[in-house]
Amino acid sequence: MDESFRRIAEFFDRDRFASENGMRIVEVALGSARAEMTVEPRHMNGVGILQGGAVFTLADLAFAAASNSHGVVAVGSQVDITYFKAVRSGKLTATAEEICRTHKLSTCLIRVTDEEGSLVALFKGLAFIKGTPLLGGV
Amino acid sequence: MDESFRRIAEFFDRDRFASENGMRIVEVALGSARAEMTVEPRHMNGVGILQGGAVFTLADLAFAAASNSHGVVAVGSQVDITYFKAVRSGKLTATAEEICRTHKLSTCLIRVTDEEGSLVALFKGLAFIKGTPLLGGV
Amino acid sequence: MDESFRRIAEFFDRDRFASENGMRIVEVALGSARAEMTVEPRHMNGVGILQGGAVFTLADLAFAAASNSHGVVAVGSQVDITYFKAVRSGKLTATAEEICRTHKLSTCLIRVTDEEGSLVALFKGLAFIKGTPLLGGV
Amino acid sequence: MDESFRRIAEFFDRDRFASENGMRIVEVALGSARAEMTVEPRHMNGVGILQGGAVFTLADLAFAAASNSHGVVAVGSQVDITYFKAVRSGKLTATAEEICRTHKLSTCLIRVTDEEGSLVALFKGLAFIKGTPLLGGV
Repeated sequence: MDESFRRIAEFFDRDRFASENGMRIVEVALGSARAEMTVEPRHMNGVGILQGGAVFTLADLAFAAASNSHGVVAVGSQVDITYFKAVRSGKLTATAEEICRTHKLSTCLIRVTDEEGSLVALFKGLAFIKGTPLLGGV
Repeated sequence: MDESFRRIAEFFDRDRFASENGMRIVEVALGSARAEMTVEPRHMNGVGILQGGAVFTLADLAFAAASNSHGVVAVGSQVDITYFKAVRSGKLTATAEEICRTHKLSTCLIRVTDEEGSLVALFKGLAFIKGTPLLGGV
Repeated sequence: MDESFRRIAEFFDRDRFASENGMRIVEVALGSARAEMTVEPRHMNGVGILQGGAVFTLADLAFAAASNSHGVVAVGSQVDITYFKAVRSGKLTATAEEICRTHKLSTCLIRVTDEEGSLVALFKGLAFIKGTPLLGGV
Repeated sequence: MDESFRRIAEFFDRDRFASENGMRIVEVALGSARAEMTVEPRHMNGVGILQGGAVFTLADLAFAAASNSHGVVAVGSQVDITYFKAVRSGKLTATAEEICRTHKLSTCLIRVTDEEGSLVALFKGLAFIKGTPLLGGV
């Protein structure tokens, strides 16, 4: 990552809900981002599979980084997620791609995959572009 | 809550991702459920407001309890969520209502509200009904 | 309907796609609207049930009227729809309610029901509020 | 198209709502399909742009063909659509791709593009797989 994207990645590492749950940004580029987590017992739901909220949060972290990758604040407004596969362990990767960006709205698709590359979930997010710079003093 | 619903509520308190993040079920009835959380600094995102994944997880917990309230396992498959309001503190309540239940599918609407009763987010979830009993030995 | 809402209803009767397919607005009030259609053979899909696009269009017409009921142009941006019931004949009603309105966004829930009042589909729509008056010269 | 896919395409040309509104299948392959329409005045909404229901119906037609391309009946259950661009004229193409198929569920992404290849709308659909053969006597 070049310097400006590295600073955006660091910014999103300050997302406490994601980081305290073991999720982190591993890459940011213009209009894209990637986040990762290792599935642990603390991420499970009542029936012993990965909680939907954990998959969602990982995808949401990648969505936030991609929609803010232009250095301008964008805030998630509407999301849908479809789950394809129950997960019990291993590493998950969320890969976000901004598929459309207008003056006001960033729309991103995020694919969550497991170590074998199988699709675990598909997440589509719309974020409002606020227009204020993401990094103060930059 | 009567005894059978109290046992379902206890079952969902075993959801580790939700409980370790401070969310819990406070009520279950046939086709409905309510979950609560108190917003803390650990729930914030990079821009200092409640992370979308935290709101989602609270709603998802209520969704799981409502769609499983018949005592039969149902697994979330597709969800969409719309956010209406940034949250920084206070108590949030997620109220789930099963609006349609067929042989195979439970569809629920979950409203997340703050202490003033304002709508923070609206969540719609579809869960596949597996047909196996939720509580072993029941 | 009072005069201003009657004019909004007439405005949406100029929606050619909806009207040529037999759908019309029957009521508009502040933040709500109702549209109706009678199911005909021309509305069927390849397997002989009401085409999803016909149900969607009826709901979308009610959504447009409700989100524009303040007299200000709002344009649909994101919609999700869940189908509960196959329909072959009879009258359908779409009832739209604006559940949240901010400066920029109108969010509406639309319930499509059959003559018995059973839920046929649930539609959630987000519309961008443009801010221009809906009715020129008003 | 080979013979079996040609028959599936013909089957979906019997979708009366789509065909009477000028939409047709132009290609079917295993897990994918393409539908087209030419935008006409009868497809417009009250504000003079292509009605959302028309875009939806075109995408829905491609979705039906892709999710039924295995020769087994699948019925749309949940759809979301995001609109990116207002359309007033020209030809639209909906390209459907089945991104995940399990025993019970087909999930497809459909991109609607204009003549310049710009993204007009993105549609995600979930269809229940019924298991009955699509073409009687086959």
